[in-house]
Amino acid sequence: MLENGFLVWEASNNTATFHPVIESDRVEGTAVFNQQGRRIGTIKRLLIEKVSGKVLYVDVTFGGFLGIGVHLRTVPWDKLSYDKALESYRTEITEEQVRDAPAFYGYDGDDLVWPDRKREKELRDYWRDDPRGPI
Amino acid sequence: MLENGFLVWEASNNTATFHPVIESDRVEGTAVFNQQGRRIGTIKRLLIEKVSGKVLYVDVTFGGFLGIGVHLRTVPWDKLSYDKALESYRTEITEEQVRDAPAFYGYDGDDLVWPDRKREKELRDYWRDDPRGPI
Repeated sequence: MLENGFLVWEASNNTATFHPVIESDRVEGTAVFNQQGRRIGTIKRLLIEKVSGKVLYVDVTFGGFLGIGVHLRTVPWDKLSYDKALESYRTEITEEQVRDAPAFYGYDGDDLVWPDRKREKELRDYWRDDPRGPI
Repeated sequence: MLENGFLVWEASNNTATFHPVIESDRVEGTAVFNQQGRRIGTIKRLLIEKVSGKVLYVDVTFGGFLGIGVHLRTVPWDKLSYDKALESYRTEITEEQVRDAPAFYGYDGDDLVWPDRKREKELRDYWRDDPRGPI
């Protein structure tokens, strides 16, 4: 069935595995709202770990509230949760967090330049909720 | 570093975790070649399990060799492997397999219609290499 724009399997009984599935090209372009219900950004792309096939990060274009134009920020995928009523993602990320976040990668001409390991750790540490555990 | 169009982390030492990462919007539109080196399709989108964030399936537009126009088929993600030399994906899937594959979902107007659990099992069984284990 199609539920608020997202494809989900129907759970016909309790023993079956429930498999909500989303399409990559449907996530791209979806709005991101903050806890106050204000639209703060748009999902640009998903970053997927090749070996495991897991979505690790998501690029979000934040803009409008920073006062300094539009900014692309790379945030951990689990910082976003889908809100059926909004048909968008919701996040606890604040304006301050976005403003101070380390840039993850940049462009060299048309080529993306990926950060080194040190910067990736910096990003993980920055977005970590619980300093004791992994993201 | 950027390696054949894909972003990878540099492995600076043996103890560090290696993290090759791909971007969703870079996978979409990438060519798929068969074992004979013939281009048989193009990746349309990734299908991601919401809870785990894992890419489970990929929609591929196959065309040109079926003699019956272009066909969208949903195949398990692990049926595709990235070939650096080709800068594309390679698959062991054959023309016969594509021709006989069960359609995964269809369109009802602009809305995608997701299959029920029975059809999803049918698809998993169809693409299974080893009948004893999961895909």
